[in-house]
Amino acid sequence: MNNNHIEIIGFIAAFLTTAAFLPQVYKTWKTKDVSGLSLPMLLMFFVGIVLWLVYAIYINSPSMIMANVITIVSSFFLIYFKIKYDKK
Amino acid sequence: MNNNHIEIIGFIAAFLTTAAFLPQVYKTWKTKDVSGLSLPMLLMFFVGIVLWLVYAIYINSPSMIMANVITIVSSFFLIYFKIKYDKK
Repeated sequence: MNNNHIEIIGFIAAFLTTAAFLPQVYKTWKTKDVSGLSLPMLLMFFVGIVLWLVYAIYINSPSMIMANVITIVSSFFLIYFKIKYDKK
Repeated sequence: MNNNHIEIIGFIAAFLTTAAFLPQVYKTWKTKDVSGLSLPMLLMFFVGIVLWLVYAIYINSPSMIMANVITIVSSFFLIYFKIKYDKK
């Protein structure tokens, strides 16, 4: 297994883990039900993912960079929905 | 920044992202409410995390290995709860 093969595994992993996250974002957007979401947990997760992105850039891993950028965008939306819909 | 520094960032990232996941497992265990969980999504996520673990072992990243092992165990429990409580 060379570096190209392992990057293919990384991209499949990135696809599977980020794709599993997107229905949650869609469901929250459609239902506006944020009762099950915890803001401290979302913020912790967000900071964690930002640090994984720093890590991924440092070790120069294209698949990890892609996965973390998509997850940062997804969790940013969840945080935005949580703040916006919780006040209503 | 050397390799030790980046591993410290990785371990902080691992702590934050896995810790944000554990309350979901605990909540599902306590409430037995698995209606919001989708089995295909859980299985997709599980396979994705297993592939990330393969990736982490290949690139020899201790923090990624730790994060993925914890997340594999967590999502295994969610899959188990989903199958067990959905039938009732």
